[in-house]
Amino acid sequence: MERKERKIVVAVDESEESRYALKWCITNLMYHSENYKLVLHYVQPPPPPPYSFFDATGHLFAGGDFVLDTEKLGSELANSVMERAEAICRKLNTTNNINMERVIGTGDAKDVICSTVQKVKADILVMGSHGYDGFFKRALLGSVSDHCARHAKCPVLIVRRT
Amino acid sequence: MERKERKIVVAVDESEESRYALKWCITNLMYHSENYKLVLHYVQPPPPPPYSFFDATGHLFAGGDFVLDTEKLGSELANSVMERAEAICRKLNTTNNINMERVIGTGDAKDVICSTVQKVKADILVMGSHGYDGFFKRALLGSVSDHCARHAKCPVLIVRRT
Repeated sequence: MERKERKIVVAVDESEESRYALKWCITNLMYHSENYKLVLHYVQPPPPPPYSFFDATGHLFAGGDFVLDTEKLGSELANSVMERAEAICRKLNTTNNINMERVIGTGDAKDVICSTVQKVKADILVMGSHGYDGFFKRALLGSVSDHCARHAKCPVLIVRRT
Repeated sequence: MERKERKIVVAVDESEESRYALKWCITNLMYHSENYKLVLHYVQPPPPPPYSFFDATGHLFAGGDFVLDTEKLGSELANSVMERAEAICRKLNTTNNINMERVIGTGDAKDVICSTVQKVKADILVMGSHGYDGFFKRALLGSVSDHCARHAKCPVLIVRRT
């Protein structure tokens, strides 16, 4: 029986947790050569507002250049995260070619991820238990994965690195 | 390639959410006739302490009988939940016979579930987003699924009824 394509969104970032979640997903959810689409989703933080930063000597940054630099840096980081994630997929999924797609968002990770799963009509969202947030941010605001588990409009799989 | 048996624990209770999670699990995770073991896990609340309840007229309950009755009631409820869950499995999984097991625990659901996944060496825990806790308990203490997503020693799949 042919089943419709199933869309798995994996939230990836720089953390080891997110790579672990991606590996788990490929070896446990996408083991069969079924009709899968893997959406690798990375959220970069919003750029800082222009003309609002001073350097150590108290001089104002030339806003435009600074924003340009952070944008370039953000885009390089996004590329590096995506390439690393795609390499993991190719390495682990030896039985079939994965139909992969990159989706890069900008903003508050928890809101962007919830909005993306709705936009792409995800069948499942997979994410690491940490990532996107350091210890203090998590303690103060709750983790991104907690928020997504509560608010994403699809089943959410939280993979904890053990 | 023969893969080792994978143990899926599904937390079931009286709620529609848990039945939805079970259905999702069977049709989306256990679709292939692989080597699965499905552990249906129900947690019943602990019995009230004996000799501590008064009826409407102010008379003390005969503690022993009362405890016996609540135990009987709890066990009947557990049976009814399990039978309903097994009926769902048999109905949805027409391609292969599921290797099922019942595990009934007693105590605080969030702690018992976390302890069970460790005991049975679960590969994944599946649960509904609500269940085991009403609105007020959830608002005050956080939901059972939140707790398990944070503390269970295996990947946790939270299925929200949409």
